[in-house]
Amino acid sequence: MTSNIHTTVEQWDLFELTMEGPQEGNPFLDVTLEALFLSPSGTSFCVRGFYDGEGRYSVRFMPEETGEWSYRTDSSTAALSGREGHFTCKPTTGNNHGPVRVRHQFHFGYADGTPYLPMGTTCYAWTHQDEALQEETLVTLKNGPFNKMRMCVFPKSYQYNENEPPYHAFEGSQETGWDERRFNPAFFRHLEQRIADLRDLGIEADLILFHPYDRWGYAKLSPETDDRYLRYITARLSAYRNVWWSLANEYDLMKSKTTEDWERFATIVTDHDPYSHLISIHNCGPFYDYTRPWITHCSIQRVDVYRTAENTNQWRQDWQKPIVIDECAYEGNIDWGWGNITGQEMVRRFWEGAVRGGYVGHGETYVHPEEILWWSKGGQLHGSSPQRIGFLKQILEEGPEGRLDPLPSEWDVPRAGIANHYYLYYFGFNQPSYRHFRMDPGTNYQVDVIDTWEMTVQTLEGIYEGAFRVDLPGKPYIAVRLRKAE
Amino acid sequence: MTSNIHTTVEQWDLFELTMEGPQEGNPFLDVTLEALFLSPSGTSFCVRGFYDGEGRYSVRFMPEETGEWSYRTDSSTAALSGREGHFTCKPTTGNNHGPVRVRHQFHFGYADGTPYLPMGTTCYAWTHQDEALQEETLVTLKNGPFNKMRMCVFPKSYQYNENEPPYHAFEGSQETGWDERRFNPAFFRHLEQRIADLRDLGIEADLILFHPYDRWGYAKLSPETDDRYLRYITARLSAYRNVWWSLANEYDLMKSKTTEDWERFATIVTDHDPYSHLISIHNCGPFYDYTRPWITHCSIQRVDVYRTAENTNQWRQDWQKPIVIDECAYEGNIDWGWGNITGQEMVRRFWEGAVRGGYVGHGETYVHPEEILWWSKGGQLHGSSPQRIGFLKQILEEGPEGRLDPLPSEWDVPRAGIANHYYLYYFGFNQPSYRHFRMDPGTNYQVDVIDTWEMTVQTLEGIYEGAFRVDLPGKPYIAVRLRKAE
Repeated sequence: MTSNIHTTVEQWDLFELTMEGPQEGNPFLDVTLEALFLSPSGTSFCVRGFYDGEGRYSVRFMPEETGEWSYRTDSSTAALSGREGHFTCKPTTGNNHGPVRVRHQFHFGYADGTPYLPMGTTCYAWTHQDEALQEETLVTLKNGPFNKMRMCVFPKSYQYNENEPPYHAFEGSQETGWDERRFNPAFFRHLEQRIADLRDLGIEADLILFHPYDRWGYAKLSPETDDRYLRYITARLSAYRNVWWSLANEYDLMKSKTTEDWERFATIVTDHDPYSHLISIHNCGPFYDYTRPWITHCSIQRVDVYRTAENTNQWRQDWQKPIVIDECAYEGNIDWGWGNITGQEMVRRFWEGAVRGGYVGHGETYVHPEEILWWSKGGQLHGSSPQRIGFLKQILEEGPEGRLDPLPSEWDVPRAGIANHYYLYYFGFNQPSYRHFRMDPGTNYQVDVIDTWEMTVQTLEGIYEGAFRVDLPGKPYIAVRLRKAE
Repeated sequence: MTSNIHTTVEQWDLFELTMEGPQEGNPFLDVTLEALFLSPSGTSFCVRGFYDGEGRYSVRFMPEETGEWSYRTDSSTAALSGREGHFTCKPTTGNNHGPVRVRHQFHFGYADGTPYLPMGTTCYAWTHQDEALQEETLVTLKNGPFNKMRMCVFPKSYQYNENEPPYHAFEGSQETGWDERRFNPAFFRHLEQRIADLRDLGIEADLILFHPYDRWGYAKLSPETDDRYLRYITARLSAYRNVWWSLANEYDLMKSKTTEDWERFATIVTDHDPYSHLISIHNCGPFYDYTRPWITHCSIQRVDVYRTAENTNQWRQDWQKPIVIDECAYEGNIDWGWGNITGQEMVRRFWEGAVRGGYVGHGETYVHPEEILWWSKGGQLHGSSPQRIGFLKQILEEGPEGRLDPLPSEWDVPRAGIANHYYLYYFGFNQPSYRHFRMDPGTNYQVDVIDTWEMTVQTLEGIYEGAFRVDLPGKPYIAVRLRKAE
């Protein structure tokens, strides 16, 4: 009766124990299932299983330690209880670096120590489109610079989002009513497949658990259903190493939820996620209280039409956590101000955030004849910012220690780096034709003039030290990099 | 002994009574001179005269009332006392609209009722350059859109401003020392000529009485000299209808002056200016307290590298006075952030201020082989913003009532005008390809799509009413104007 027992599994990959069990009654409610996993070093993890329909039950586990693991199930039904087994966890290969964690307080890194620089994009409802479009999205992602995807569990109802999703999360239908006591396993299996697809592309899935743009009832489930849904989805998804939890998109627009609800949700998710994936909650207007201990990083929406990423260093001080500006507005040309900034402005916001020690996110909303706007449905990218975001990522990866922290700056040009070692200055929309640098004497620098829009790096001849002048192109979107000469 | 008695003078033109008097001693200190002018309707004005060197004494007066005026002098010396005379004040002709006053609380108008929309520029030290350059500046101004000039009484010492001025305000020299008790009349005569030149071009002279960028001592005169200078310059210049008083450029950088000093200066200037010219004081960092009753309008410097003109409506609420952002940064390419914004950004700031009911000012700092930067020395304009500023002025002049007040707006697009009559929306750096307008039903509008950069106005066919969609070019710097159809 036990199948799919993989006797070896890669570190941070997914081990799954699948069993046959009772179908009668409502297994979603009637049957409890969990398993105790014992690590090679003797640490135990209690993991919740789930009912996958048609008499199938599963327990999923992400081993974080190499070596021999063992497990034993426990269940309210004898058929699923007392199952024992073991498997070997072997070291990772290829692009598996493990889950992303907070590192150095304001930054991120994979569990294996590799720095992770979030270059996120947003396709809220991409998994709710037809299969061909989802596949097209994956091809676009494969060829693009992005390594994080904001996406909703539930389908989206909004301007440009009038189509019906292929799957729903509950049994039933809009016409006959939803049975909130019975999940639709096909819905979740599909979502999992897409999360695995992202994982295989090296993309983190920043999974939005609730959102307000709804015509089916997902935004107004009963508290009991909300909680059951969270226990169910954490049981299904926690073992995927690339999952991040986002309790909500625009929590403050979900008028049926209170702070007490969000706090209860946070407790459920963190209690049922034995791996402590990254978790946050995203605002529309007022910020959530990011000092809450369960919040691993800030997930911020623009606070102003004109000035948002420029607040990054202030927010670092305020919240003492990584600053991810998941929505700084979208490159596009739709009617609303949140969806019609230029590629230049998008890239500028990425750089303004980066040189202040934060991470800005992308989205795209160009009008499309079939209403396929990347920000929600995925598909193809049409804008000019993604390749420049890739260029920024490359510049950041070339920097020391895989992260960038702000340094005391002159009033008109932010800079970041490591004092007397590495500096990155960003001139934004200003167009200086030269700049005087006044560095501490005694350190020799190589000077690079970086055109962040044309994506060129010009390394100046010679070595610079102390006070010196650097000629610049006299156009916007220029950065200057000083690297200590060997 | 009395000369230059013009028996007729145009309203708001300058009447000057010139007399010969004692040269011995120090007439600047020893001789008092004033005159009482009696208006046709019986109002009297006490006006201070001044010593103009070489035994010449003058009293200048700007009559604001047409008809027969009379006057009588009084002096500490008998030779200048008791002179009586009269003159006829006739109505204005040509471009003489009188001095500019505050109108409708947040705006300006000439004394004859003509609206005045300040489109200011800045050439701090243009009157301290060689004559040929000054003449070139006047030619540039004649062909440009500007109707206000920020300029310093005293010469300027600063980056790109190393040359010596042709005149100094006091007798003496840098080498032998200045005699602060003796003004140099040639200095002031020259300044007056340039103010008159501006007047003849229809340009207001926003005259900066003190500033910190100094190597000769003007920024650190004794309090007695400061006060004497203010009494002297107000006696000489108040009768020029196009004079505005700006107590300082960057008052807060003049460390030798206190708030008490500025308040005393304000009292001296307003006490000695019988016409109540516009008066303000300009900051570098913290604002002066613009609620002070002597301040007629706010004269503001940018508060942020990124976001300044966008604060205009807030500042209107805070200060309840006209908002003039005299320095929003300068179009140019020098090293500092205050002097290297693009033409696009300059024009954007003008529009952002205008649609919030304020007035942004211009300046230009392009690197020049002979260090002739417009912002300080004048000369020629090299930037792309001036003609677009002229276009904005034309749009504003076409609007109703010669002024623009903000209206309640959607969060992403500021708008101004008169409800149900005239609306001007500005989309800034956003690039919508369309916009839905949701107007109160019942009013028919003509719709203009304005490209503020290309300086084009496209009037759409047909009449629009209620809720309607307008297609837009999908590029930055677009405005939409709705005008009630007749």
